[in-house]
Amino acid sequence: MTAVTVWNEYIHEREDDAVAEVYPDGIHETIADALEARGHDTRTATLDEPEHGLTEAVLDDTDVLVWWGHAAHDAVEDHVVDRVVERVYKGMGLLVLHSGHASKPFTRLLGTPCDLTYREGDDRERLWVTDPGHPIVDGLDESIVIDETETYGEPFGIPEPDRLVFTSWFEGGEVFRSGCCYRRGRGKLFYFRPGHETYPIYHREDVQWILDNAVRWATPTEGAAAYGGNRPVDPPES
Amino acid sequence: MTAVTVWNEYIHEREDDAVAEVYPDGIHETIADALEARGHDTRTATLDEPEHGLTEAVLDDTDVLVWWGHAAHDAVEDHVVDRVVERVYKGMGLLVLHSGHASKPFTRLLGTPCDLTYREGDDRERLWVTDPGHPIVDGLDESIVIDETETYGEPFGIPEPDRLVFTSWFEGGEVFRSGCCYRRGRGKLFYFRPGHETYPIYHREDVQWILDNAVRWATPTEGAAAYGGNRPVDPPES
Amino acid sequence: MTAVTVWNEYIHEREDDAVAEVYPDGIHETIADALEARGHDTRTATLDEPEHGLTEAVLDDTDVLVWWGHAAHDAVEDHVVDRVVERVYKGMGLLVLHSGHASKPFTRLLGTPCDLTYREGDDRERLWVTDPGHPIVDGLDESIVIDETETYGEPFGIPEPDRLVFTSWFEGGEVFRSGCCYRRGRGKLFYFRPGHETYPIYHREDVQWILDNAVRWATPTEGAAAYGGNRPVDPPES
Amino acid sequence: MTAVTVWNEYIHEREDDAVAEVYPDGIHETIADALEARGHDTRTATLDEPEHGLTEAVLDDTDVLVWWGHAAHDAVEDHVVDRVVERVYKGMGLLVLHSGHASKPFTRLLGTPCDLTYREGDDRERLWVTDPGHPIVDGLDESIVIDETETYGEPFGIPEPDRLVFTSWFEGGEVFRSGCCYRRGRGKLFYFRPGHETYPIYHREDVQWILDNAVRWATPTEGAAAYGGNRPVDPPES
Repeated sequence: MTAVTVWNEYIHEREDDAVAEVYPDGIHETIADALEARGHDTRTATLDEPEHGLTEAVLDDTDVLVWWGHAAHDAVEDHVVDRVVERVYKGMGLLVLHSGHASKPFTRLLGTPCDLTYREGDDRERLWVTDPGHPIVDGLDESIVIDETETYGEPFGIPEPDRLVFTSWFEGGEVFRSGCCYRRGRGKLFYFRPGHETYPIYHREDVQWILDNAVRWATPTEGAAAYGGNRPVDPPES
Repeated sequence: MTAVTVWNEYIHEREDDAVAEVYPDGIHETIADALEARGHDTRTATLDEPEHGLTEAVLDDTDVLVWWGHAAHDAVEDHVVDRVVERVYKGMGLLVLHSGHASKPFTRLLGTPCDLTYREGDDRERLWVTDPGHPIVDGLDESIVIDETETYGEPFGIPEPDRLVFTSWFEGGEVFRSGCCYRRGRGKLFYFRPGHETYPIYHREDVQWILDNAVRWATPTEGAAAYGGNRPVDPPES
Repeated sequence: MTAVTVWNEYIHEREDDAVAEVYPDGIHETIADALEARGHDTRTATLDEPEHGLTEAVLDDTDVLVWWGHAAHDAVEDHVVDRVVERVYKGMGLLVLHSGHASKPFTRLLGTPCDLTYREGDDRERLWVTDPGHPIVDGLDESIVIDETETYGEPFGIPEPDRLVFTSWFEGGEVFRSGCCYRRGRGKLFYFRPGHETYPIYHREDVQWILDNAVRWATPTEGAAAYGGNRPVDPPES
Repeated sequence: MTAVTVWNEYIHEREDDAVAEVYPDGIHETIADALEARGHDTRTATLDEPEHGLTEAVLDDTDVLVWWGHAAHDAVEDHVVDRVVERVYKGMGLLVLHSGHASKPFTRLLGTPCDLTYREGDDRERLWVTDPGHPIVDGLDESIVIDETETYGEPFGIPEPDRLVFTSWFEGGEVFRSGCCYRRGRGKLFYFRPGHETYPIYHREDVQWILDNAVRWATPTEGAAAYGGNRPVDPPES
């Protein structure tokens, strides 16, 4: 059982009726419920809680952090970002969703701006599996279709992913690297593109299935000793 | 000035009038002329020449080998494939085009079947640059369009590329990793998808430009000493 | 419970008294016993069995194949190698040990000669963990020491590994990429350097621990649909 | 001819007589002279110049930036780091030397702390080439020896390098990934370990040769159009 914290800035759902209709309790609750139903131990955290809900105590009890943000990336305080990033180095998994590509934790860990092109044009998206042996795609078919979505397009300003799990096709003519795996320190990162706030994408069975797979994949393993920090050492062979 | 040998099985052009109309002297001559005009020192070789035109002497004088094959992969003799592959380990560049994905040199060097899905359906293709900093895309715009082509689709059975330079969008709904860089030994490999025999793709200015860039990129550098073969050694610190 | 088949050419142990003293029942039995004791379902196979003990039926029932060979790489028949390699593409894990770097399955899957330098000089080896977050090193310290071993040295003629898990230091002055992860198709490969036949390395608790971790890591997951083989397709969007 | 700016914090050389004896005009002048002599167009910049000598005008005229820092990483102002990092995204090459592993530009671009173990113990170091085909090692032998140096040891807290060009052996028992290539945006990064301030390492012919190769490798190529920043787009196929 993986301890999952689903973080959401939780702004659009409270300010925009169209979004509230799709996610009445917020994107975080929809995702947390889906992961809970699949056997994980979930909690949620949002921007306007003290320390954005990401205290040391909460992160002590988090194996995998799921991140959704869009309108308020800059409002996330740097000391909380430092804390999240430090946890990733020590093994916490991080799933970054959709517009989280421009969030502080993601760009800090990747070292690049992660910019892209976009269009709210109700395009159809076809997510192709480009790494059929990867555990994140366990049980999927060769591709899945999302009938209406926001489009993201290349060039996507990221470092070459360790594994490229999904590549999206969009009706309007774009492609996008939609499922990207990285490691930073001991922690595993997965970026997953689908999920704009105005579409019911996180209510889909197949998307929830992928998030479940991704949580399992990103759950920390023990690894080897790694004391951390620069430190002087005696010669081991002396 | 790079010494380039353009290899072609040269079958379709002699057996199929529609292909002969597009490439009257063979695909190899079209590509060789284009590379010659861009400053390379080119020659050609074809399947029905002795040793398929790839003698030790020819390969001694080849910096980069360009490979086009489709109908007769199995007719390429293994000892010639061994020779090509050995040269790649020692630094010869290799450009594998389109249906060459299933050729002996490519599958031998990659270690996988490199299979894919395909359709001769006159789809429009949009090649997106997914690695804007790569020398193979020097001078290109963000994408290029090929109005009619054979479609290739994922899953493409290759090892994860070192660099993914192009990703294709097809009108019919597919995506494809269309520009893939690898290294094997000291040799650089580039797989480039466009180029079915029934379309005049190798006559295009932009495709020729890409092939020119790829030849420059794949041209051997000197590298460090690497004697090759398993060999016993004395302790260097004794 | 993972179904593991441990393959050994089983020559040195029967021809050389010094080796027989270290591995009286063969390297394969030592490794199989160690993995059985750690909860896997193990069997063994050797070169002189019919089809080298690697029939379709045996491979049908193998999740992870462990490979040890040295003196008789060329005696392994190509159709058996084809069978092993095909299984890897479909997901079977493959652990290649020590002198197996020059075996047919490993060089076929990697696409390079995998040559190296070596010395039977009783060097001390220190295996450093260079990927502390990897599941193969779960529970290890920063390095482990093998007091006497055969030395392997760079350059090691392999493609750049997906993950470099161990890097060895040798008393005589060499370094070596001793733990290398790859994927080919759906199958995971791990190369692990220690294990010359004249040293009791596979009797070590820490080495058995690493092999156990590696078996768990290489156990197939389901993945996505991937039908295999080149095949024509209709446009999915039509 | 590549425009190179060699940056040095320039502290030890002015505060420590032993260092001043090795680098009387500062490490930056030694490196700049060596690169100038090999055909590059060099200038230098140091910490205590206005804007650390890295104004927009200087960076406008810099193809490759070389970075040496140790005692004063925190004194480098963030807005200058932002400027350097932005230039890398747009193509400027960056060579980070030795203790620069903990500098702001390097850790920002890599996204990890890049910590390590160290010892000032006069160890002998043997730098092994682990990527013999790479242009940075053009003309080198299989390894080079530095008789006395500061030791760095694994675990080195970096993302898996795109290419691992050098791996060091140290007399005291450590190994280290001493030559690491990355790309961030269009810019190429090379980390090169040797070069502690108390040893005359940058006066060595072979080290200067490597730096020259690295400057050539990191020199920007044109690449494809990449407009940068998140931006809305119309459908290209409409």
